[in-house]
Amino acid sequence: MLAVLDERNFPVDRPLLLASERSAELKLSFRGELLPVEPVSAGAFDGIELALFAAGNPVSTRWAPVACAAGARVVDNSSAFRYQDGVPLVVPEVNGQLLDARPPLVANPNCSTIALILALAPLARAAGLERVVVSTYQAVSGAGAEALDELERGVRAGLDRRPPPAADGSPPFAFNVVPRIDRFEDNGYTREEMKIVWESRKILGIPDLAVSATAVRVPVRVGHSAAVTVRLSRPMDPEEARTLWRSFPGVEVVDTPELDRYPMPLEVEGRDAVRVGRTRRDLSDPNGLCFFVASDNLRKGAALNAVQIAEQLCGERAGAR
Amino acid sequence: MLAVLDERNFPVDRPLLLASERSAELKLSFRGELLPVEPVSAGAFDGIELALFAAGNPVSTRWAPVACAAGARVVDNSSAFRYQDGVPLVVPEVNGQLLDARPPLVANPNCSTIALILALAPLARAAGLERVVVSTYQAVSGAGAEALDELERGVRAGLDRRPPPAADGSPPFAFNVVPRIDRFEDNGYTREEMKIVWESRKILGIPDLAVSATAVRVPVRVGHSAAVTVRLSRPMDPEEARTLWRSFPGVEVVDTPELDRYPMPLEVEGRDAVRVGRTRRDLSDPNGLCFFVASDNLRKGAALNAVQIAEQLCGERAGAR
Repeated sequence: MLAVLDERNFPVDRPLLLASERSAELKLSFRGELLPVEPVSAGAFDGIELALFAAGNPVSTRWAPVACAAGARVVDNSSAFRYQDGVPLVVPEVNGQLLDARPPLVANPNCSTIALILALAPLARAAGLERVVVSTYQAVSGAGAEALDELERGVRAGLDRRPPPAADGSPPFAFNVVPRIDRFEDNGYTREEMKIVWESRKILGIPDLAVSATAVRVPVRVGHSAAVTVRLSRPMDPEEARTLWRSFPGVEVVDTPELDRYPMPLEVEGRDAVRVGRTRRDLSDPNGLCFFVASDNLRKGAALNAVQIAEQLCGERAGAR
Repeated sequence: MLAVLDERNFPVDRPLLLASERSAELKLSFRGELLPVEPVSAGAFDGIELALFAAGNPVSTRWAPVACAAGARVVDNSSAFRYQDGVPLVVPEVNGQLLDARPPLVANPNCSTIALILALAPLARAAGLERVVVSTYQAVSGAGAEALDELERGVRAGLDRRPPPAADGSPPFAFNVVPRIDRFEDNGYTREEMKIVWESRKILGIPDLAVSATAVRVPVRVGHSAAVTVRLSRPMDPEEARTLWRSFPGVEVVDTPELDRYPMPLEVEGRDAVRVGRTRRDLSDPNGLCFFVASDNLRKGAALNAVQIAEQLCGERAGAR
């Protein structure tokens, strides 16, 4: 997030870095300067205009209201507030107009959902969106830095033998595919899958959108992908879809099968745009379309989208939508 | 295939191993004995009762008719004959009755299709199958031994830097997801995706079955997985589906989310059964069901299914269906 703020010349001189006592000794680099991480406290947000939260739900639940009460606008990366009525859930290119009212608290969506939504929004506007079936191929970095270390250990061990389970006993990421992300809900879906359902409906403003999601972890470091099948309200030629995507901000069409060009996680790392390709008619549905999406889950899936929200909240770079 | 013949006590004393001149120096082990590989020739199939072909389409196209003409029954693993009328395409547990007529040539289906079909067949029989949307997570061993070496080289290199492209310039398997398997067809689908469509219809005997497939390679050595969403002709409770699968040969239900049990490629390596789990109602379709499948692509996906066909063709182990 600090790197993205720097890259985009966000109008801040010296950000205040807050964390728990656990990070007391930590220093983080910003524009060549090492900044200390200070302990969060009741008065820490006094005089702060904008607070970017990149923590888990318990931390956001406890401290986001404190920041708001102190007068800061909050952009929260956790899922703690995403489903609350009145809290905008924003992908700036899609529903950035919700920021015009300068809401005190804005939720940043789930990493898989952001990429999916950027691909869906132009199709939904042009032809009406009725149903989405999505299977994800999610990178291990989505589970955090410790999970990435676990992947590396597993890959090293797995070169010579069967990769061992993770330190906490969960299945190895290395040389494996794990059809579980986040905890299970009572309906048999994982929380990650339900985030895709709930957040797609909220961001696109289609409360009854039919969504079937399967969220799966693959041994990739950075870059979430998804295989998507949609039913629109009318038939759409693949070339019409590509034209719609090409004129939509934040989307890049990489779709030249004859040159072996399609979206892949290794090629989106470090890039802002969500890549879409493998576009083809759904052979089984006249109003259907199939395509493949890949994006950097740490950038557009998290930090970049949050910083874009902050830019619009602060009146900078308006009109990106 | 030799290992599976041995494990299952297939009634053969000393199989004749045939290959091109390229394998002239090769010897393969069978029941503790090293057998020479002999060059295939016009007279090589004389007196042979059963020929198992594990080669590419050009080899099968050239030599399978020669074997048939010499009186051998042929089980062919390539896709050369799969779509010909009159050539049975067989998953013994599903349509093994086609072998009762002792056909001279039987085609062994695609590795992803076999696992999918075993999961679909009991649902189709009990409740009618109308539509299938499937996204695969396919192991690199499906692309052959050289691809596995490429994966290993890529993983070793990719621990320290970005994995390099494969020797032939194609995208790296390591730490990547590649949404292309086999060549592209004119309709934007890959050949692998169309195999799933055509073969599912033929094996299940539902010529107009609606199938949308996306075939994707993941950095896994052995074990193909698939996320599947189906529409049946009536609603089906997940527990009914599990009961159907439990009583279907070749299928194993691994579906206990509260114990973190679901199908994964690392756990199916070396196993015969196709594992099914993550079963849940499709939230977007009252007649819909979602589930996840994993199976050993080298066993049930190839060698085991071919040997099962051979067993039934030779009158041994009848009634497995």
